[in-house]
Amino acid sequence: MIYDNERIDQLSAQNIQIIQSSDVFSFSLDAVLLAHFARIPKRGLIVDLCSGNGAVGLFISRKTQAQIIGVELQERLADMARRSIQLNNLEEQLSVLNIDLKETNQLVRKDTVDCVVCNPPYFKELPTNVKNPNPHLAIARHELHTNLEEVIKMSAGLLKMNGRFSMVHRPERLTEILAVMQHYHLEPKRMQLVYPKVGREANTLLIEGIHHGKPGGLKILPPLYVYGDDNQYLPEIEAILHGE
Amino acid sequence: MIYDNERIDQLSAQNIQIIQSSDVFSFSLDAVLLAHFARIPKRGLIVDLCSGNGAVGLFISRKTQAQIIGVELQERLADMARRSIQLNNLEEQLSVLNIDLKETNQLVRKDTVDCVVCNPPYFKELPTNVKNPNPHLAIARHELHTNLEEVIKMSAGLLKMNGRFSMVHRPERLTEILAVMQHYHLEPKRMQLVYPKVGREANTLLIEGIHHGKPGGLKILPPLYVYGDDNQYLPEIEAILHGE
Repeated sequence: MIYDNERIDQLSAQNIQIIQSSDVFSFSLDAVLLAHFARIPKRGLIVDLCSGNGAVGLFISRKTQAQIIGVELQERLADMARRSIQLNNLEEQLSVLNIDLKETNQLVRKDTVDCVVCNPPYFKELPTNVKNPNPHLAIARHELHTNLEEVIKMSAGLLKMNGRFSMVHRPERLTEILAVMQHYHLEPKRMQLVYPKVGREANTLLIEGIHHGKPGGLKILPPLYVYGDDNQYLPEIEAILHGE
Repeated sequence: MIYDNERIDQLSAQNIQIIQSSDVFSFSLDAVLLAHFARIPKRGLIVDLCSGNGAVGLFISRKTQAQIIGVELQERLADMARRSIQLNNLEEQLSVLNIDLKETNQLVRKDTVDCVVCNPPYFKELPTNVKNPNPHLAIARHELHTNLEEVIKMSAGLLKMNGRFSMVHRPERLTEILAVMQHYHLEPKRMQLVYPKVGREANTLLIEGIHHGKPGGLKILPPLYVYGDDNQYLPEIEAILHGE
């Protein structure tokens, strides 16, 4: 079932349907890019931290037979994710824990996870000039209930040796991201930058770390560009969204 | 004067002539890219660490009236640089210290420099499979006599508050570069990645730090691509090399 102010969006590349609501939360292109960037193990256990309405887990479910556990603080979003899982008949593969990220290792054992994916809040604080923020969006976008270090520390604790951590974030925090990842032994190994258009600065960062990987050896993949001069998605992005 | 096995190369974009020798050292595209990337103060004092045959200092001399001091360990290269400076009649603006980088602050006072540029050795060790390396090239390319931390520590010591450090290096060492820069209070603020061709991984990194800059806020500039499918320089690179 879907509620008022909800809609069902289809991601044709993956043949996945997702319940969305612009009042509460809609998955963004960032979730699609993260699902595309992350190298997903064929089997085992995957955790999707800050899973929102479940988009990343749903997208990657087509690439793997691994169990996928979403972790989402907001009950409204966790509920949307569960209904989307039902809608796609994926209850056997996907589940959602409606808990604070800090409690994840009370329900998922340490050193048991093969892959963590995460689309966390990007911004350090809520700008003071925002008067009546939508609380759902504020929590999803700003570090009100969790932060970069907590996300990375939890991911490192959950992951097996050589398990993979993949995250989407903002380039302006790259120095901090790499430092915190290295501090918690998630050695940065692959990065891709996303530019809104040719000639513009990067506005999105995709990063992968290997738990207890050997230091150094970061690879920086070819850049992605999102929009053409006509403000339409470029063919590479269309292919990621809607199939080649 | 030039010696046997030397030649004079002209960089037409800057109208600069440089004595080169492939037996000893030739400036690479990386030096040109660094000179193009670095934001150079109009006046004051600039230090070019690991200056080699002086290419970076010569290229940036056209953008500034600042004094430029090169620091180069290898006598043969420092001598080439001095003769290139004479060839361009730039003795009033440029000079070369033929010293170990570690001694720089015995000759240049701490906290007096407005800008440091550096094209250091990129590689941690000389590969054991190289039998009879050219010693000049080995020292320029491998961390035999200096290393990343020493270069960054010296740069931070030389720079005034808010002075700029610009370096060219390799993406596979990005995590270490950002960590060491931040440790020595050269806060990373601008980065540009260079890709040999469209669709390939980045092979060169340009990075700028501000001495005692506020943490965070790294900008990642649009990428540069070097070669087209025909293996010729692309127009943007031609323009940097030979003028628009």
